[in-house]
Order: sequence, then structure tokens, then C-alpha cells
Amino acid sequence: MKEYQKSKINRIKRGQNRATYDVEKIDAILDAGFIGFVNYIFEGKPISIPMGYGRKGNKIYLHGSQANRMLTSLLKAKEISMTVMHLDGLVLARSGLHHSVNYRSATLFGTLKNLEDDLAKEEGLKCFMDHMMPGRWDGIRSMHQEELDRTLVAEMTIETASAKIRDVGVNDEPEDYNLDVWAGIVPLKQIAEYPVSDDQLKSGIKIPDHVMRYYEEYKY
Amino acid sequence: MKEYQKSKINRIKRGQNRATYDVEKIDAILDAGFIGFVNYIFEGKPISIPMGYGRKGNKIYLHGSQANRMLTSLLKAKEISMTVMHLDGLVLARSGLHHSVNYRSATLFGTLKNLEDDLAKEEGLKCFMDHMMPGRWDGIRSMHQEELDRTLVAEMTIETASAKIRDVGVNDEPEDYNLDVWAGIVPLKQIAEYPVSDDQLKSGIKIPDHVMRYYEEYKY
Repeated sequence: MKEYQKSKINRIKRGQNRATYDVEKIDAILDAGFIGFVNYIFEGKPISIPMGYGRKGNKIYLHGSQANRMLTSLLKAKEISMTVMHLDGLVLARSGLHHSVNYRSATLFGTLKNLEDDLAKEEGLKCFMDHMMPGRWDGIRSMHQEELDRTLVAEMTIETASAKIRDVGVNDEPEDYNLDVWAGIVPLKQIAEYPVSDDQLKSGIKIPDHVMRYYEEYKY
Repeated sequence: MKEYQKSKINRIKRGQNRATYDVEKIDAILDAGFIGFVNYIFEGKPISIPMGYGRKGNKIYLHGSQANRMLTSLLKAKEISMTVMHLDGLVLARSGLHHSVNYRSATLFGTLKNLEDDLAKEEGLKCFMDHMMPGRWDGIRSMHQEELDRTLVAEMTIETASAKIRDVGVNDEPEDYNLDVWAGIVPLKQIAEYPVSDDQLKSGIKIPDHVMRYYEEYKY
């Protein structure tokens, strides 16, 4: 098992029984979604902005306009952190204190660089899009040079990371199991609904396989 | 229409057509979920931590252990910001540049204070829990004094906020509508599955109405 090294920045202090530094488990959390909260200091205050991302190995690809204030600032600082979370259920205990949620969350810390080479930028964007929906990149028109020029593509290298996973049932105080209180889990999940074609779609175009595969994978 | 005042900290620079400062719309985004990303500076680096919250008027309630490093640090700073996001769909355009997601996100900025009075703490916790699932607070055993003592309850007052909402279809370049490329939306939503009773549940206890109402509201 390959693990990220624990250091002051990524060591989990609270709820250590839910903590993991396992690279494979963290990659699985990253691959289960495509929206991360990128952290940023603006005017001395911490803020976080949800952004789409793609992952390939220990690289994370982000993109934005060349004028994107957050990305240009992070590229100047050359470092970045990002948090991804999936909510899996409500944990309804007999006492308030033991209420919780089931979830998977990962926090990544790394370096960030601007991709300047056109080929590298396109590879980054392809990774980004195929991470969201495999096959989509090859199903659309290719990029115009002018579009590529005004797009900023940033490559994060994950230097360290940690994750927290809660995926168990209710844990109540021993003496509370005898109470007349219902306890249990309400599972939550994100699902996809049937694709809705653009109302200006050229006639005769069917929903392509890569879109239907996504729907089949994530439908209820 | 009541709006948050625009200032340097909350004014949205990019995608202004998606921006809103409308208090009612922002409250609706907050009430559609219960997990927010709380922003924090640790060792000079910005990080964000997903936390449960409850809302009542312009107050947001958070809680944690008295030893919670982030909350105690934020309480010392007396200010806080938090971001909430709901993902509503993939926007699949004919070109890469016009791919997007439909979403609702809100960022709140405010002051934070520690609730020290027992009654105020319990009110904050009730708001927190009933925000997640209306009726739950009255369906569980009441808190022990010792539990209340070791719980930190923090009350945020929203001073200003902004939100971004994208809820429209595909917008492509005029000349691309004639391409043989499928475009459309894949709606995404978070749903609840049927409640799973704790396997140590005392016999004869049925799933209560407040849990079934939640399930009926969020089921597929």
C-alpha cells in the first residue's frame, strides 16, 4: 500500500479512526467526482471556490480564463490545496451527539504550474473533460487556436494528501440502545437523470454512446 | 427585494450574469443543503473543511468539540466565511469552451461568536439538527449536561454574501449549431434512499414520520 507521508499540514487530528493516507483510496475519492473546493487567500481572508478538475496519476488539471484572478494568484504562489467531498448518508442516532453523516472527503496539497505548451494544454483539457465524462473530448469539435490561447490550464502535482471516510452505521452510548428512539441511516447519493437534448439540436443527431454510458452508470 | 450590499469582498467579478445578491435566493441555496465549506488559514495556508450547518434568519449555527482547532481559531478571529454548492447538471456543448455545469453556489461572510449560555447552545443545536431533518430534534433523547458542556456551538451572523446560479441550457458559438455534434444537459441531483434501521434497534420501533417525510421529499 502506497501512502502519503504524514506531516503537520496533512495529519488529521480529529476522528483519526476515519483518516486515511492511502494513495489508492484518495484517488478513488477524486475519481468519484469532478468538483473540488480550491482554497485561496483574498485580501488576507481565506475563501474557497468550487472548480471542476481532472486527475491523471498524481496530477490534477484545472482551467479558467487567462484573467481568472484566483488561478493567476495561485500560479504566482506556485502552491495550492483542494478539498473534495461526497456525501453518502445521514447517520441518525438515538442522541444528538452521535448524529453524523457518512461521507468521503479528501484534501490535497501540492504545487501548481501554468502549462504554456499548446500540446500540454490540450492534454490537460482532455484529461479534465474525460475525467468528467469519458469519451466526451472525442465527441466534440476540436479547439480553435484562439480558444486555446485565452484558456489558462494549470497542472497541480499532489505532494501530500489525506482523506476521511465514514461508512458505518450508528454508534450510540451503550445505555441508549434501550431507548424508544428510532436510529438508522438515510443513504444519500448523487444520480444522473435522462439526458435532455439541446432544443436547437440539428435534426437526426442521437444521444451518443459516451453520454448514454454516463447516464447508465449514474442513473438511479 | 432585499439584497446584500456589494463590496470588494463579495462582489462577483467573473460570470456576472450568473451573480445574485438577493437575500431570499441565497437563503434558498442555504436551505437546500446542510454541508458548507468553512474556510480557514492554518500555518499560513488556506484550507477549507466541510461542516454541517443550520440556518435561522441571518444566523448560521456550527458546532464541534471544545477542542476543535478550526472552530476555536475562527472564534478567536471572530470572523468566518463559508461556501455552499449544489450541482444540478452537466452542460455538454458542441465545443469544449462552452461546456459547463448547472449549479447553485453561495458564499457567506460574517462574524462568529461562541454561544456560552446553555439555553442558547441548545437552541443553536436544535436549529442545526432541524435544518438537516425537520422534526429530528424532538424525536431523540434530550442532551445530557455533560454532553452540552463539551460541545462548542458557534453562531455566525451573515454580514454579506453573494451567490452564483447557472440554470440554463447550452450556449454555443453561432456557427457551431450546424455541426454534427450532440449537445444537451445531463441533470444531476442528490437523492435519498429508503431509511435503513440500525441492526440493534429495539424491537417494535417503526421508522418515525419525520424520517419518512424526509425520505418522501428527497427520494427519486
